[in-house]
Amino acid sequence: MTFSTKLRAVQQHNNSLLCIGLDTDVAKIPSSLRAHRLPQFEFNRRIIDATADLVCCYKINSAFYEAEAEEGWQSMRETLRYIPATVVTIGDVKRGDIGNSSERYAHIFFEELNFDAVTVNPYMGKDSVAPFLQSPERGVFILAITSNPGAKDFQRLKFGKKFLYEKVVSTAMKWNGKKNIGFVVGATNPRDLRSVRALAPSAPLLIPGVGAQGGNVESAVRYGCDKNGFLAIINASRSILYASHGKNFASAARIEALRLREEINSWRGRYFALG
Amino acid sequence: MTFSTKLRAVQQHNNSLLCIGLDTDVAKIPSSLRAHRLPQFEFNRRIIDATADLVCCYKINSAFYEAEAEEGWQSMRETLRYIPATVVTIGDVKRGDIGNSSERYAHIFFEELNFDAVTVNPYMGKDSVAPFLQSPERGVFILAITSNPGAKDFQRLKFGKKFLYEKVVSTAMKWNGKKNIGFVVGATNPRDLRSVRALAPSAPLLIPGVGAQGGNVESAVRYGCDKNGFLAIINASRSILYASHGKNFASAARIEALRLREEINSWRGRYFALG
Repeated sequence: MTFSTKLRAVQQHNNSLLCIGLDTDVAKIPSSLRAHRLPQFEFNRRIIDATADLVCCYKINSAFYEAEAEEGWQSMRETLRYIPATVVTIGDVKRGDIGNSSERYAHIFFEELNFDAVTVNPYMGKDSVAPFLQSPERGVFILAITSNPGAKDFQRLKFGKKFLYEKVVSTAMKWNGKKNIGFVVGATNPRDLRSVRALAPSAPLLIPGVGAQGGNVESAVRYGCDKNGFLAIINASRSILYASHGKNFASAARIEALRLREEINSWRGRYFALG
Repeated sequence: MTFSTKLRAVQQHNNSLLCIGLDTDVAKIPSSLRAHRLPQFEFNRRIIDATADLVCCYKINSAFYEAEAEEGWQSMRETLRYIPATVVTIGDVKRGDIGNSSERYAHIFFEELNFDAVTVNPYMGKDSVAPFLQSPERGVFILAITSNPGAKDFQRLKFGKKFLYEKVVSTAMKWNGKKNIGFVVGATNPRDLRSVRALAPSAPLLIPGVGAQGGNVESAVRYGCDKNGFLAIINASRSILYASHGKNFASAARIEALRLREEINSWRGRYFALG
Protein backbone atom coordinates (compact mmCIF):
# COMPACT_ATOMS: atom_id res chain seq x y z
CA MET A 1 0.00 0.00 0.00
CA THR A 2 1.41 3.43 -0.85
CA PHE A 3 1.83 6.01 1.86
CA SER A 4 -0.95 8.24 0.50
CA THR A 5 -3.34 5.30 0.28
CA LYS A 6 -2.73 4.38 3.90
CA LEU A 7 -3.14 7.99 5.00
CA ARG A 8 -6.34 8.51 3.06
CA ALA A 9 -7.79 5.20 4.37
CA VAL A 10 -7.28 6.10 8.02
CA GLN A 11 -8.52 9.64 7.47
CA GLN A 12 -11.71 8.16 6.04
CA HIS A 13 -12.08 5.36 8.60
CA ASN A 14 -11.51 7.55 11.66
CA ASN A 15 -13.16 10.53 9.98
CA SER A 16 -10.19 12.58 11.08
CA LEU A 17 -7.43 14.85 9.84
CA LEU A 18 -6.07 15.15 13.37
CA CYS A 19 -2.49 14.21 14.19
CA ILE A 20 -1.36 14.07 17.79
CA GLY A 21 2.25 15.04 18.34
CA LEU A 22 3.71 12.79 21.02
CA ASP A 23 6.20 15.42 22.24
CA THR A 24 6.36 13.63 25.52
CA ASP A 25 8.36 15.59 28.05
CA VAL A 26 9.33 13.57 31.12
CA ALA A 27 9.15 16.73 33.23
CA LYS A 28 5.51 17.33 32.27
CA ILE A 29 3.95 13.89 32.69
CA PRO A 30 2.21 12.85 35.91
CA SER A 31 4.78 11.98 38.54
CA SER A 32 3.15 8.58 39.15
CA LEU A 33 4.39 7.48 35.71
CA ARG A 34 8.00 8.42 36.37
CA ALA A 35 8.54 5.28 38.46
CA HIS A 36 8.09 3.10 35.38
CA ARG A 37 11.09 1.79 33.50
CA LEU A 38 10.07 3.76 30.39
CA PRO A 39 7.99 6.74 31.56
CA GLN A 40 7.55 8.21 28.08
CA PHE A 41 6.18 4.96 26.73
CA GLU A 42 3.83 4.54 29.72
CA PHE A 43 2.43 8.00 29.09
CA ASN A 44 2.15 7.46 25.34
CA ARG A 45 0.43 4.11 25.80
CA ARG A 46 -2.35 5.73 27.76
CA ILE A 47 -2.68 8.61 25.28
CA ILE A 48 -2.86 6.14 22.39
CA ASP A 49 -5.47 3.99 24.16
CA ALA A 50 -7.57 7.12 24.68
CA THR A 51 -7.25 8.61 21.18
CA ALA A 52 -6.34 6.02 18.51
CA ASP A 53 -9.89 6.04 17.06
CA LEU A 54 -9.85 9.83 16.75
CA VAL A 55 -6.67 10.48 14.78
CA CYS A 56 -5.14 9.80 11.39
CA CYS A 57 -1.55 10.02 12.60
CA TYR A 58 0.75 10.14 15.55
CA LYS A 59 3.83 12.26 15.11
CA ILE A 60 6.85 11.51 17.27
CA ASN A 61 9.38 14.30 17.70
CA SER A 62 12.69 12.50 18.16
CA ALA A 63 14.18 15.41 20.13
CA PHE A 64 12.12 14.52 23.19
CA TYR A 65 13.23 10.88 23.08
CA GLU A 66 16.89 11.43 22.24
CA ALA A 67 17.00 13.74 25.25
CA GLU A 68 16.45 10.62 27.39
CA ALA A 69 19.28 8.75 25.61
CA GLU A 70 19.05 4.93 25.50
CA GLU A 71 15.83 4.92 27.55
CA GLY A 72 14.17 7.41 25.22
CA TRP A 73 15.18 5.33 22.27
CA GLN A 74 13.47 2.32 23.83
CA SER A 75 10.37 4.38 24.57
CA MET A 76 10.24 5.48 20.94
CA ARG A 77 10.57 1.88 19.78
CA GLU A 78 7.87 0.60 22.17
CA THR A 79 5.54 3.46 21.25
CA LEU A 80 5.82 2.61 17.56
CA ARG A 81 5.06 -1.02 18.27
CA TYR A 82 2.03 -0.03 20.28
CA ILE A 83 0.35 2.27 17.74
CA PRO A 84 -2.35 0.36 15.80
CA ALA A 85 -1.09 -0.65 12.35
CA THR A 86 -3.83 1.26 10.53
CA VAL A 87 -2.77 4.60 12.02
CA VAL A 88 0.02 6.50 10.25
CA THR A 89 3.23 7.19 12.19
CA ILE A 90 5.43 10.18 11.39
CA GLY A 91 8.96 10.54 12.73
CA ASP A 92 9.48 14.26 13.14
CA VAL A 93 13.24 13.99 12.86
CA LYS A 94 14.12 16.82 10.44
CA ARG A 95 17.22 15.03 9.20
CA GLY A 96 19.19 15.69 6.03
CA ASP A 97 22.84 14.92 5.35
CA ILE A 98 25.12 13.77 2.55
CA GLY A 99 23.97 10.60 0.82
CA ASN A 100 25.65 7.88 2.86
CA SER A 101 24.59 9.54 6.13
CA SER A 102 21.00 10.11 5.02
CA GLU A 103 20.94 6.41 4.07
CA ARG A 104 21.71 5.59 7.69
CA TYR A 105 18.94 7.80 8.93
CA ALA A 106 16.48 6.30 6.45
CA HIS A 107 17.49 2.85 7.64
CA ILE A 108 17.00 3.58 11.32
CA PHE A 109 13.69 5.41 10.99
CA PHE A 110 12.08 3.27 8.27
CA GLU A 111 13.59 -0.20 8.70
CA GLU A 112 14.59 -0.32 12.32
CA LEU A 113 11.84 1.76 13.97
CA ASN A 114 9.26 1.26 11.18
CA PHE A 115 7.90 4.79 10.88
CA ASP A 116 5.50 5.26 7.96
CA ALA A 117 6.96 8.70 7.26
CA VAL A 118 9.60 11.17 8.38
CA THR A 119 10.22 14.89 8.15
CA VAL A 120 13.42 16.00 6.38
CA ASN A 121 15.27 19.29 6.00
CA PRO A 122 15.85 20.32 2.37
CA TYR A 123 18.83 22.67 2.83
CA MET A 124 21.40 20.16 1.51
CA GLY A 125 19.41 19.42 -1.66
CA LYS A 126 18.37 16.43 -3.69
CA ASP A 127 20.98 13.82 -2.78
CA SER A 128 20.37 14.48 0.94
CA VAL A 129 16.65 13.73 0.52
CA ALA A 130 16.84 10.94 -2.06
CA PRO A 131 17.73 8.09 0.36
CA PHE A 132 14.41 8.66 2.16
CA LEU A 133 12.38 8.48 -1.07
CA GLN A 134 13.16 4.91 -2.11
CA SER A 135 9.89 3.21 -1.15
CA PRO A 136 6.40 4.42 -2.14
CA GLU A 137 5.15 2.98 1.16
CA ARG A 138 7.16 5.54 3.12
CA GLY A 139 6.21 9.20 3.13
CA VAL A 140 8.71 12.06 3.25
CA PHE A 141 7.58 15.44 4.55
CA ILE A 142 10.02 18.09 3.40
CA LEU A 143 10.19 21.24 5.53
CA ALA A 144 8.75 24.06 3.43
CA ILE A 145 7.53 26.86 5.67
CA THR A 146 7.58 26.23 9.41
CA SER A 147 5.46 27.77 12.15
CA ASN A 148 8.26 29.29 14.24
CA PRO A 149 9.39 32.96 14.21
CA GLY A 150 12.71 32.06 12.52
CA ALA A 151 10.82 30.95 9.40
CA LYS A 152 11.20 34.53 8.20
CA ASP A 153 15.02 34.46 8.32
CA PHE A 154 15.57 32.25 5.28
CA GLN A 155 12.35 30.47 4.22
CA ARG A 156 10.76 33.82 3.33
CA LEU A 157 13.71 35.24 1.44
CA LYS A 158 12.52 36.30 -2.01
CA PHE A 159 13.98 35.12 -5.31
CA GLY A 160 12.27 37.26 -7.87
CA LYS A 161 8.59 36.74 -7.16
CA LYS A 162 8.99 33.53 -5.20
CA PHE A 163 9.84 32.82 -1.61
CA LEU A 164 12.60 30.31 -0.90
CA TYR A 165 10.04 27.87 0.54
CA GLU A 166 8.07 27.98 -2.74
CA LYS A 167 11.26 27.23 -4.63
CA VAL A 168 11.83 24.29 -2.26
CA VAL A 169 8.36 22.94 -3.01
CA SER A 170 8.54 23.33 -6.78
CA THR A 171 12.04 21.81 -6.89
CA ALA A 172 11.14 18.90 -4.63
CA MET A 173 8.10 18.08 -6.76
CA LYS A 174 10.59 17.13 -9.50
CA TRP A 175 11.99 14.44 -7.18
CA ASN A 176 8.56 12.90 -6.66
CA GLY A 177 8.77 9.87 -8.95
CA LYS A 178 7.47 7.59 -6.18
CA LYS A 179 4.67 10.05 -5.32
CA ASN A 180 5.60 9.90 -1.66
CA ILE A 181 6.66 13.49 -1.03
CA GLY A 182 4.67 15.72 1.29
CA PHE A 183 5.48 19.08 2.87
CA VAL A 184 5.50 20.68 6.29
CA VAL A 185 3.55 23.93 6.14
CA GLY A 186 2.84 25.95 9.26
CA ALA A 187 -0.76 26.94 9.92
CA THR A 188 0.17 30.46 10.92
CA ASN A 189 -0.28 32.08 7.48
CA PRO A 190 -3.13 31.04 5.13
CA ARG A 191 -1.25 32.38 2.11
CA ASP A 192 1.48 29.78 2.65
CA LEU A 193 -1.00 26.92 2.65
CA ARG A 194 -2.69 28.14 -0.51
CA SER A 195 0.58 28.54 -2.29
CA VAL A 196 1.96 25.11 -1.35
CA ARG A 197 -1.36 23.39 -2.12
CA ALA A 198 -1.36 25.03 -5.57
CA LEU A 199 2.18 23.81 -6.27
CA ALA A 200 1.48 20.30 -4.94
CA PRO A 201 -2.23 19.50 -5.48
CA SER A 202 -2.04 15.84 -4.38
CA ALA A 203 0.70 15.92 -1.75
CA PRO A 204 0.03 15.23 1.93
CA LEU A 205 0.61 18.40 3.95
CA LEU A 206 1.67 18.19 7.57
CA ILE A 207 0.39 21.30 9.28
CA PRO A 208 1.73 22.23 12.72
CA GLY A 209 0.97 25.41 14.59
CA VAL A 210 -2.76 25.34 15.33
CA GLY A 211 -3.63 26.01 18.95
CA ALA A 212 -0.72 27.20 21.10
CA GLN A 213 1.12 28.75 18.15
CA GLY A 214 -1.89 30.74 16.94
CA GLY A 215 -2.65 28.99 13.67
CA ASN A 216 -6.18 29.04 12.39
CA VAL A 217 -8.07 25.74 12.03
CA GLU A 218 -10.41 27.07 9.36
CA SER A 219 -7.64 28.05 6.97
CA ALA A 220 -5.65 24.88 7.73
CA VAL A 221 -8.66 22.87 6.53
CA ARG A 222 -9.79 25.14 3.74
CA TYR A 223 -6.38 25.60 2.10
CA GLY A 224 -4.53 22.55 3.38
CA CYS A 225 -6.86 19.81 2.08
CA ASP A 226 -6.73 18.39 -1.41
CA LYS A 227 -9.80 18.96 -3.60
CA ASN A 228 -11.62 16.07 -1.92
CA GLY A 229 -11.13 17.28 1.63
CA PHE A 230 -8.29 14.90 2.53
CA LEU A 231 -4.49 14.78 2.84
CA ALA A 232 -4.18 17.70 5.24
CA ILE A 233 -2.70 16.45 8.52
CA ILE A 234 -3.40 18.92 11.29
CA ASN A 235 -1.07 18.48 14.22
CA ALA A 236 -1.62 19.39 17.86
CA SER A 237 0.76 18.36 20.62
CA ARG A 238 0.84 20.13 23.97
CA SER A 239 -2.83 21.18 23.97
CA ILE A 240 -3.83 17.51 23.89
CA LEU A 241 -1.03 15.76 25.82
CA TYR A 242 -1.17 18.16 28.72
CA ALA A 243 -4.91 19.00 28.68
CA SER A 244 -4.74 17.86 32.30
CA HIS A 245 -1.70 17.36 34.51
CA GLY A 246 -3.66 15.13 36.87
CA LYS A 247 -4.41 11.42 36.88
CA ASN A 248 -7.20 12.05 34.37
CA PHE A 249 -4.70 13.17 31.70
CA ALA A 250 -5.74 10.47 29.23
CA SER A 251 -9.46 11.18 29.41
CA ALA A 252 -8.76 14.92 29.24
CA ALA A 253 -6.63 14.27 26.14
CA ARG A 254 -9.54 12.37 24.60
CA ILE A 255 -11.94 15.22 25.24
CA GLU A 256 -9.58 17.77 23.66
CA ALA A 257 -8.88 15.44 20.69
CA LEU A 258 -12.63 14.96 20.15
CA ARG A 259 -13.17 18.70 20.30
CA LEU A 260 -10.44 19.48 17.79
CA ARG A 261 -11.50 16.68 15.42
CA GLU A 262 -15.03 18.07 15.45
CA GLU A 263 -13.82 21.62 14.87
CA ILE A 264 -11.78 20.39 11.90
CA ASN A 265 -14.70 18.36 10.54
CA SER A 266 -17.15 21.21 10.82
CA TRP A 267 -14.90 23.26 8.49
CA ARG A 268 -14.42 20.25 6.22
CA GLY A 269 -18.17 19.92 5.93
CA ARG A 270 -18.40 23.57 4.99
CA TYR A 271 -15.72 23.63 2.29
CA PHE A 272 -15.78 20.11 0.83
CA ALA A 273 -18.38 17.65 -0.41
CA LEU A 274 -17.31 14.65 1.68
CA GLY A 275 -18.43 11.31 0.29
CA MET B 1 37.68 28.36 28.29
CA THR B 2 35.82 29.52 25.17
CA PHE B 3 35.39 27.14 22.29
CA SER B 4 37.73 29.09 20.01
CA THR B 5 40.42 29.18 22.70
CA LYS B 6 40.29 25.43 23.14
CA LEU B 7 40.38 24.87 19.39
CA ARG B 8 43.30 27.22 18.84
CA ALA B 9 45.22 25.65 21.77
CA VAL B 10 44.97 22.11 20.42
CA GLN B 11 45.75 23.26 16.89
CA GLN B 12 48.93 24.84 18.22
CA HIS B 13 49.89 22.01 20.59
CA ASN B 14 49.38 19.21 18.04
CA ASN B 15 50.50 21.45 15.18
CA SER B 16 47.44 20.29 13.30
CA LEU B 17 44.32 21.50 11.52
CA LEU B 18 43.29 17.91 10.86
CA CYS B 19 39.94 16.58 12.02
CA ILE B 20 39.19 12.89 11.75
CA GLY B 21 35.55 12.08 11.08
CA LEU B 22 34.63 8.98 13.05
CA ASP B 23 31.99 7.84 10.53
CA THR B 24 32.35 4.35 11.85
CA ASP B 25 30.39 1.88 9.75
CA VAL B 26 29.97 -1.51 11.40
CA ALA B 27 29.99 -3.17 7.97
CA LYS B 28 33.43 -1.72 7.16
CA ILE B 29 35.40 -2.40 10.32
CA PRO B 30 37.57 -5.51 10.73
CA SER B 31 35.38 -8.51 11.46
CA SER B 32 37.45 -9.37 14.55
CA LEU B 33 36.00 -6.27 16.25
CA ARG B 34 32.39 -7.21 15.61
CA ALA B 35 32.41 -9.74 18.42
CA HIS B 36 32.81 -6.94 20.97
CA ARG B 37 29.79 -5.60 22.83
CA LEU B 38 30.28 -2.16 21.24
CA PRO B 39 32.10 -2.70 17.94
CA GLN B 40 32.02 0.98 16.94
CA PHE B 41 33.63 2.03 20.20
CA GLU B 42 36.27 -0.69 19.94
CA PHE B 43 37.21 0.53 16.48
CA ASN B 44 37.20 4.19 17.53
CA ARG B 45 39.33 3.49 20.60
CA ARG B 46 42.09 2.08 18.42
CA ILE B 47 41.85 4.94 15.93
CA ILE B 48 42.02 7.48 18.76
CA ASP B 49 45.02 5.75 20.36
CA ALA B 50 46.77 5.88 17.00
CA THR B 51 45.98 9.48 16.05
CA ALA B 52 45.11 11.68 19.06
CA ASP B 53 48.46 13.50 18.91
CA LEU B 54 47.97 14.31 15.22
CA VAL B 55 44.55 15.98 15.18
CA CYS B 56 42.79 19.06 16.49
CA CYS B 57 39.31 17.49 16.46
CA TYR B 58 37.33 14.33 16.15
CA LYS B 59 33.98 14.70 14.43
CA ILE B 60 31.30 12.13 15.16
CA ASN B 61 28.53 11.80 12.60
CA SER B 62 25.51 10.73 14.63
CA ALA B 63 23.88 9.00 11.63
CA PHE B 64 26.33 6.11 11.87
CA TYR B 65 25.63 5.61 15.58
CA GLU B 66 21.87 6.10 15.52
CA ALA B 67 21.79 3.42 12.82
CA GLU B 68 22.90 0.98 15.54
CA ALA B 69 20.14 2.15 17.91
CA GLU B 70 20.80 1.79 21.66
CA GLU B 71 24.17 0.14 21.07
CA GLY B 72 25.28 2.94 18.78
CA TRP B 73 24.23 5.46 21.37
CA GLN B 74 26.44 3.71 23.92
CA SER B 75 29.34 3.60 21.48
CA MET B 76 28.98 7.34 20.90
CA ARG B 77 28.97 7.97 24.65
CA GLU B 78 32.01 5.77 25.30
CA THR B 79 33.90 7.30 22.40
CA LEU B 80 33.35 10.79 23.78
CA ARG B 81 34.59 9.69 27.18
CA TYR B 82 37.68 8.19 25.61
CA ILE B 83 38.83 11.18 23.54
CA PRO B 84 41.53 13.15 25.44
CA ALA B 85 40.05 16.26 27.06
CA THR B 86 42.36 18.63 25.17
CA VAL B 87 41.09 17.48 21.76
CA VAL B 88 37.94 19.16 20.42
CA THR B 89 34.88 16.97 19.78
CA ILE B 90 32.29 17.92 17.17
CA GLY B 91 28.88 16.25 16.97
CA ASP B 92 27.99 16.27 13.29
CA VAL B 93 24.27 16.08 13.99
CA LYS B 94 22.84 18.75 11.63
CA ARG B 95 19.86 19.38 13.88
CA GLY B 96 17.53 22.36 13.88
CA ASP B 97 13.94 22.50 15.10
CA ILE B 98 11.54 24.86 16.86
CA GLY B 99 12.86 26.27 20.11
CA ASN B 100 11.71 23.69 22.65
CA SER B 101 12.90 20.82 20.43
CA SER B 102 16.27 22.40 19.69
CA GLU B 103 16.66 22.86 23.46
CA ARG B 104 16.33 19.09 23.82
CA TYR B 105 18.95 18.47 21.20
CA ALA B 106 21.31 21.02 22.79
CA HIS B 107 20.81 19.26 26.12
CA ILE B 108 21.57 15.79 24.82
CA PHE B 109 24.62 16.73 22.74
CA PHE B 110 26.19 19.31 25.07
CA GLU B 111 25.12 18.26 28.57
CA GLU B 112 24.50 14.55 28.28
CA LEU B 113 27.15 13.54 25.71
CA ASN B 114 29.49 16.50 26.37
CA PHE B 115 30.40 17.42 22.79
CA ASP B 116 32.45 20.64 22.52
CA ALA B 117 30.53 21.61 19.37
CA VAL B 118 27.74 20.52 17.04
CA THR B 119 26.70 21.17 13.46
CA VAL B 120 23.24 22.71 12.95
CA ASN B 121 21.00 23.29 9.95
CA PRO B 122 19.96 26.94 9.51
CA TYR B 123 16.79 26.46 7.43
CA MET B 124 14.40 27.14 10.34
CA GLY B 125 16.12 30.37 11.33
CA LYS B 126 17.29 32.11 14.47
CA ASP B 127 15.11 30.56 17.16
CA SER B 128 16.01 27.07 15.91
CA VAL B 129 19.73 27.80 16.34
CA ALA B 130 19.59 29.96 19.48
CA PRO B 131 19.28 27.09 22.02
CA PHE B 132 22.67 25.78 20.87
CA LEU B 133 24.38 29.17 21.32
CA GLN B 134 23.92 29.63 25.04
CA SER B 135 27.43 28.83 26.27
CA PRO B 136 30.64 30.37 24.89
CA GLU B 137 32.37 27.06 25.71
CA ARG B 138 30.30 25.23 23.09
CA GLY B 139 30.81 25.82 19.40
CA VAL B 140 28.03 25.80 16.80
CA PHE B 141 28.91 25.09 13.18
CA ILE B 142 26.08 26.31 10.98
CA LEU B 143 25.76 24.60 7.60
CA ALA B 144 26.64 27.20 4.98
CA ILE B 145 27.77 25.50 1.78
CA THR B 146 28.15 21.74 1.87
CA SER B 147 30.35 19.49 -0.26
CA ASN B 148 27.60 17.30 -1.78
CA PRO B 149 26.08 17.71 -5.28
CA GLY B 150 22.72 18.87 -3.82
CA ALA B 151 24.41 21.99 -2.45
CA LYS B 152 23.51 23.63 -5.77
CA ASP B 153 19.76 23.06 -5.33
CA PHE B 154 19.17 25.70 -2.66
CA GLN B 155 22.44 26.86 -1.09
CA ARG B 156 23.54 28.35 -4.42
CA LEU B 157 20.29 30.08 -5.25
CA LYS B 158 21.00 33.73 -5.91
CA PHE B 159 19.37 36.67 -4.15
CA GLY B 160 20.56 39.67 -6.05
CA LYS B 161 24.34 39.32 -6.00
CA LYS B 162 24.49 36.93 -3.09
CA PHE B 163 24.09 33.19 -2.81
CA LEU B 164 21.72 31.86 -0.16
CA TYR B 165 24.66 30.41 1.76
CA GLU B 166 26.28 33.85 1.93
CA LYS B 167 23.03 35.27 3.26
CA VAL B 168 23.02 32.48 5.87
CA VAL B 169 26.54 33.43 6.97
CA SER B 170 25.93 37.18 7.13
CA THR B 171 22.64 36.70 9.00
CA ALA B 172 24.09 34.18 11.45
CA MET B 173 26.97 36.52 12.28
CA LYS B 174 24.34 38.81 13.83
CA TRP B 175 23.49 36.01 16.30
CA ASN B 176 27.11 35.69 17.39
CA GLY B 177 27.00 37.52 20.73
CA LYS B 178 28.84 34.65 22.45
CA LYS B 179 31.41 34.43 19.62
CA ASN B 180 30.88 30.69 19.33
CA ILE B 181 29.47 30.43 15.81
CA GLY B 182 31.42 28.66 13.09
CA PHE B 183 30.41 27.47 9.63
CA VAL B 184 30.53 24.30 7.58
CA VAL B 185 32.07 25.10 4.19
CA GLY B 186 32.85 22.37 1.67
CA ALA B 187 36.36 22.28 0.27
CA THR B 188 35.14 21.64 -3.25
CA ASN B 189 35.05 25.29 -4.37
CA PRO B 190 37.77 27.79 -3.31
CA ARG B 191 35.46 30.74 -4.01
CA ASP B 192 33.12 29.55 -1.25
CA LEU B 193 35.90 29.45 1.31
CA ARG B 194 37.11 32.91 0.39
CA SER B 195 33.64 34.35 0.58
CA VAL B 196 32.78 32.82 3.97
CA ARG B 197 36.19 33.73 5.44
CA ALA B 198 35.65 37.33 4.31
CA LEU B 199 32.22 37.45 5.96
CA ALA B 200 33.44 35.76 9.16
CA PRO B 201 37.14 36.60 9.66
CA SER B 202 37.47 35.02 13.11
CA ALA B 203 35.02 32.13 12.93
CA PRO B 204 36.14 28.50 13.01
CA LEU B 205 35.39 26.86 9.66
CA LEU B 206 34.72 23.15 9.46
CA ILE B 207 35.82 22.02 6.02
CA PRO B 208 34.73 18.60 4.76
CA GLY B 209 35.28 17.28 1.27
CA VAL B 210 39.06 16.95 0.87
CA GLY B 211 40.20 13.58 -0.42
CA ALA B 212 37.40 11.30 -1.62
CA GLN B 213 35.10 14.21 -2.52
CA GLY B 214 37.74 16.00 -4.61
CA GLY B 215 38.36 19.07 -2.48
CA ASN B 216 41.73 20.73 -2.69
CA VAL B 217 43.93 20.85 0.43
CA GLU B 218 45.82 23.93 -0.72
CA SER B 219 42.74 26.10 -1.07
CA ALA B 220 41.21 24.71 2.14
CA VAL B 221 44.30 25.96 3.99
CA ARG B 222 44.88 29.14 2.04
CA TYR B 223 41.31 30.43 2.16
CA GLY B 224 39.94 28.55 5.17
CA CYS B 225 42.43 29.73 7.80
CA ASP B 226 42.13 32.96 9.73
CA LYS B 227 44.87 35.54 9.18
CA ASN B 228 47.16 33.72 11.60
CA GLY B 229 46.88 30.32 9.93
CA PHE B 230 44.46 28.80 12.43
CA LEU B 231 40.74 28.05 12.87
CA ALA B 232 40.33 26.03 9.69
CA ILE B 233 39.34 22.48 10.60
CA ILE B 234 40.03 20.16 7.71
CA ASN B 235 38.06 16.95 7.96
CA ALA B 236 38.85 13.55 6.48
CA SER B 237 36.89 10.43 7.33
CA ARG B 238 36.94 7.35 5.14
CA SER B 239 40.44 7.89 3.72
CA ILE B 240 41.85 7.61 7.25
CA LEU B 241 39.45 5.17 8.99
CA TYR B 242 39.62 2.64 6.18
CA ALA B 243 43.20 3.21 5.00
CA SER B 244 43.51 -0.52 5.62
CA HIS B 245 40.79 -3.09 6.11
CA GLY B 246 43.20 -5.49 7.78
CA LYS B 247 44.38 -5.89 11.34
CA ASN B 248 46.82 -3.03 10.80
CA PHE B 249 43.97 -0.56 10.33
CA ALA B 250 45.06 1.65 13.23
CA SER B 251 48.67 1.99 12.14
CA ALA B 252 47.51 2.57 8.54
CA ALA B 253 45.20 5.30 9.84
CA ARG B 254 48.13 6.90 11.65
CA ILE B 255 50.26 6.90 8.51
CA GLU B 256 47.48 8.53 6.46
CA ALA B 257 46.76 11.07 9.23
CA LEU B 258 50.46 11.96 9.42
CA ARG B 259 50.60 12.36 5.67
CA LEU B 260 47.56 14.64 5.54
CA ARG B 261 48.69 16.72 8.53
CA GLU B 262 52.03 17.27 6.81
CA GLU B 263 50.37 18.18 3.52
CA ILE B 264 48.21 20.71 5.37
CA ASN B 265 51.18 22.10 7.26
CA SER B 266 53.29 22.48 4.16
CA TRP B 267 50.62 24.79 2.71
CA ARG B 268 50.26 26.58 6.04
CA GLY B 269 53.99 27.26 6.05
CA ARG B 270 53.72 28.69 2.56
CA TYR B 271 50.79 31.04 3.15
CA PHE B 272 51.10 32.01 6.82
CA ALA B 273 53.83 33.21 9.14
CA LEU B 274 53.34 30.63 11.90
CA GLY B 275 54.70 31.67 15.31
